[in-house]
Amino acid sequence: MASDYSSTLNTVSPKVLNCVYAIRGEIVTHAQILQQELKENPGSHPFNEILYCNIGNPHSLGQKPITFFREVLALCDHPLILDRSETKALFSADSIVRASQILDQIPGRATGSYSHSQGIKGLRDTIASGIEARDGFPADPNDIFLTDGASPAVHMMMQLLIGSENDGILCPIPQYPLYSASITLHGGTHVPYYLDEETGWALEISELENQLKAARSRGVNIRALVVINPGNPTGWVLAEANQREIVEFCRKEGLVLLADEVYQENVYAPDKQFHSFKKISCSMEFGEKDISLVSFHSASKGYYGECGKRGGYMEFTGFSPEIREQMYKVASVNLCSNISGQILTSLIMSPPKVGDESYESFSVEKEAILSSLARRAKILEDAFNSMEGVTCKKAEGALYSFPRINLPGKAIKAAEEAKTAPDAFYARRLLDATGIVVVPGSGFGQRLGTWHFRCTILPQEEKIPAIVSRLTQFHKQFMDEFRG
Amino acid sequence: MASDYSSTLNTVSPKVLNCVYAIRGEIVTHAQILQQELKENPGSHPFNEILYCNIGNPHSLGQKPITFFREVLALCDHPLILDRSETKALFSADSIVRASQILDQIPGRATGSYSHSQGIKGLRDTIASGIEARDGFPADPNDIFLTDGASPAVHMMMQLLIGSENDGILCPIPQYPLYSASITLHGGTHVPYYLDEETGWALEISELENQLKAARSRGVNIRALVVINPGNPTGWVLAEANQREIVEFCRKEGLVLLADEVYQENVYAPDKQFHSFKKISCSMEFGEKDISLVSFHSASKGYYGECGKRGGYMEFTGFSPEIREQMYKVASVNLCSNISGQILTSLIMSPPKVGDESYESFSVEKEAILSSLARRAKILEDAFNSMEGVTCKKAEGALYSFPRINLPGKAIKAAEEAKTAPDAFYARRLLDATGIVVVPGSGFGQRLGTWHFRCTILPQEEKIPAIVSRLTQFHKQFMDEFRG
Repeated sequence: MASDYSSTLNTVSPKVLNCVYAIRGEIVTHAQILQQELKENPGSHPFNEILYCNIGNPHSLGQKPITFFREVLALCDHPLILDRSETKALFSADSIVRASQILDQIPGRATGSYSHSQGIKGLRDTIASGIEARDGFPADPNDIFLTDGASPAVHMMMQLLIGSENDGILCPIPQYPLYSASITLHGGTHVPYYLDEETGWALEISELENQLKAARSRGVNIRALVVINPGNPTGWVLAEANQREIVEFCRKEGLVLLADEVYQENVYAPDKQFHSFKKISCSMEFGEKDISLVSFHSASKGYYGECGKRGGYMEFTGFSPEIREQMYKVASVNLCSNISGQILTSLIMSPPKVGDESYESFSVEKEAILSSLARRAKILEDAFNSMEGVTCKKAEGALYSFPRINLPGKAIKAAEEAKTAPDAFYARRLLDATGIVVVPGSGFGQRLGTWHFRCTILPQEEKIPAIVSRLTQFHKQFMDEFRG
Repeated sequence: MASDYSSTLNTVSPKVLNCVYAIRGEIVTHAQILQQELKENPGSHPFNEILYCNIGNPHSLGQKPITFFREVLALCDHPLILDRSETKALFSADSIVRASQILDQIPGRATGSYSHSQGIKGLRDTIASGIEARDGFPADPNDIFLTDGASPAVHMMMQLLIGSENDGILCPIPQYPLYSASITLHGGTHVPYYLDEETGWALEISELENQLKAARSRGVNIRALVVINPGNPTGWVLAEANQREIVEFCRKEGLVLLADEVYQENVYAPDKQFHSFKKISCSMEFGEKDISLVSFHSASKGYYGECGKRGGYMEFTGFSPEIREQMYKVASVNLCSNISGQILTSLIMSPPKVGDESYESFSVEKEAILSSLARRAKILEDAFNSMEGVTCKKAEGALYSFPRINLPGKAIKAAEEAKTAPDAFYARRLLDATGIVVVPGSGFGQRLGTWHFRCTILPQEEKIPAIVSRLTQFHKQFMDEFRG
C-alpha cells in the first residue's frame, strides 16, 4: 500500500487546511519564482530586483543591526575571547562588561544550556526593570515568559484559551493574520470586530460590545480580546482614553486582554505616544484579581528589527497560580526559547545609558533608523493619497502603509474571471509590473466591498523615490486599463 | 466582574489540562526550591549542590561547547570584525572562512532577517550534503525544514496529522514524553506500543501489529508511528534488520514514520551503528510514493549538546506536493527558526574536515566528549546493576540510564499513602537525600507494576564516583527502611 500522504489531502488536519496566512502566501511564492527567473535570466522582467514589502523584515531590505547588541551577542556566543587583549581593540568596553554581566546571570555561564522554561532568571529581572522604567509601575520577573519572537507566545496563549470551537477570540479587522491563523490551528472561533477606517482605524467600544453580544447569542464563549497597538496593518496608535475604555471593557466582561505591543518603539506621530496596557491598567488601580492581561513584545521590530534572532517575551499578569502552572507546563514542553534571543530581548529592554561608552553611537544608530522610518511613512502616505481612487490613512506607528484602493468595476470583473480576489489581482499585477511585493487587504480582513493592500515602509530611504515612481506609474496604467 | 482567569481552571483548555510533561514536572520544581534553600542557607541539606540528571542538558553540567562552532556563530553575529587584523589573532582561520561562506549564503548577509520559512537555502544545501555523506543516498534541500530544536518540528507534525481525537499516533512505551504531551495538546489519541525490556528494550513488529489492530478495531485512525533511535529513555540502538521491518510495516499500513534521530551521534556500543530510517528506506529501494518519512534532528544532543541554541531540522520525504504546501504554511505562520540555530545546525552536519586548521582540536574535543560519555554510561549501568533489586539495561546510545527498581511492598504502600506513584516516591526520597534529580519512570510510561527512573549520564566524569556512592548509599538506606 502506498502512503496516504503521498497522494491526497484528506489525511491532513482540517485545522491546518483551513488556516490562512497571506504574509507568506501565493503572491510571495510567485515573487520567489520571479526572483529565480531574474537570477537565471537577467532582463527577463521589466525590473531588476524583487522588493519584498510584504513583511516587516527590516534587515532584509538593508537596515543594519545595532552594533552594541551584536557585540554583546558575539561575546556571549564565544566567551573564551572575553579576557583577550585583542578583544579590547575589537569590541566596545561596555559591550565586554555587559557580556560578562549577562554570563554571570546564566548558571555555569553556559549559553549552550536549556534555561528555565520561562527564560534565564537574571535576564527576566533585567526585562522587568525595563518594563518598570517604561511604565512607572512594578513588574515581576516571574510574570515574564521569554519566547522565540512573539508568534510562539501567541500560539501558547491560544493553546491555553481554546478548548473547542465554542471558544472564541475577538480580533480586529484588519488584523495581523497570525491571530486568525493561530485561532484556526487551535480549533477556536475567530470573532472579528471592525476598526473604523474613516477615523484612521480607531477602535470603538460600541463595536466590541456589539460583536461580543452577537457572538454570545450564537453560543460562542468569548475568551479574549486581541488588540494590536500600534496597529498592524493600520498604523493607528491608540489614545490613552481609548485604552482605558478597552481595559474596562475586558474587566467588565471577564475577557483576557491579549495586547500585541511589538511596535511599541515605532511611533512617528508627534502627538501620539505608546502606553502599555499594563501601565493603563495599573493607572486605573486594577490589580491581579481584576484583569487578566498579556503583553507581547518582540526583538523583531522597533529600531532594532532583529527578526532572525527570534527573541521576545510575554508579560503574563492577572492569572491564578493554577493557570500560571498550566502556562508554565506549556512552556516546558518546548523546553525554552533560544538563549541568544533571550539575551537580545534583555538588551532591547536595557540599551546603553548616558555615560556608557557606546551610548552616543547607539543613539545615533537608533535615531537615524526611527527618523528615517517616520520620513518614509510620510512619503508613502503622500504618494498613495496622490493616486487616483486611493486613500491612505497616516501611519502613526508600526512599519506599514495600508492604502485603500477603489477598484474599477472592470478590474473587479477581471479578478473574478481570474478566480482571485480583486486586491490580490491588483497586487499580482503590481508584482509582475514592478517587482514590488505587497500583501492584499484580503489577507488581513477588510469591510465587504473595500479593497486594500499592505506595503511596508522598510525599503531604504534612497530607494523610496524610485519605488514611489514605479508604484505611481503602475497604478496609472492599471487604472487606464480598467477605468470604466 | 473579576476575570475568570484569576480564579478557576475551568477556563483553560482541557487539552492543556490533560497534558503531562514530567521532565520538568513536580520533582524539578521541588529541586529548584531546595536549590534556593541551599543558596540562602548553606548546610540546610545533606548535600551542597543539586545535580540535575533529569534532562539531557550537557552544558548545564559542565560540558564545554565545541570551539569551532562557537567561533563561527560569534563571527556571524558580528560580521563587522571579520576583516580586522585582531580577529585573525582571536579566531581560527577556518572559522573566519566558514563564517564568510555562511554569510555569503544569506541574502544581504543579513543574519537579522527572517529567512525562508524552511530556513536559509544555502544552509539547507549544506545539511542535505551532510545527510548524503552520512547515508550514501541523495537528499533534497527542499525536503529540509529548519526548526528551533526538534520539539517544534514534532509539534508541527502533530498539528498536520491530528484533526480530531479519532486520529491516533503509535508511540513507544517508555517514550520521551514530548510525544504524548504533543499528541494531547493537539487533541489526538496516544496509542502506546511496548518495548521489550527483557531483550534490552527491543522493538517487536508483532507488538506494533497487535496495537495497530486493536486501535483500529476501536475506530482509531492511526496516522503515524513514532520511533526513537537511539532510544530515549531506553538507550537501545535499533539493528538494521529491525529497521527494515519497521519501514516495511509503515509502508504496508500507510503510516507516516516519525523518526526521532536526535541521538544519532551518541552510539557507544561497539557492535551497534546508527542508520537513519531514510537510508534504510532508500536501501530498500522505496521512493517518494512508497513511504512518508520524517527524520528529526537537533543541535541539542550529540557531542555538541547545544540545547540553548535551539537548532534542528526535519527531513520531510514522501509527501504529496499538496501536503508539502500545508507543511510550508504551518512553518510560515511561525515565520522561521532562529538564524544562529540554523547556522549551528549546518555546522553539526558539516564539521571541520581533515586539512582544516581546526580539524585536530575539533576532533580532540569531540572524541573526549563521546568517549567520556561511553565510560560514564558503563559506570552508571554497573553501579545500578550492583544495587539490590535493580536491573539496568546497557545504554548502547543516547544520554540516559533507565534502571528498573523492584520496589518492596512497604515502599509501594508508603507511596500510596503519600498519594504519589511508587517511582515518584523513590525519586523524591533520592532528591531529598542526595540532591540528585532523576525522572520517575511513570513520566515515560512503563509496563504495569514495573518501576523505573531515568538518570542522565551527563555529570562530568570526575563527579561520577561520588554520585555512584551517593546513589548506592541512598538505595541501601531506602531498602533497609522498606525491605519486607
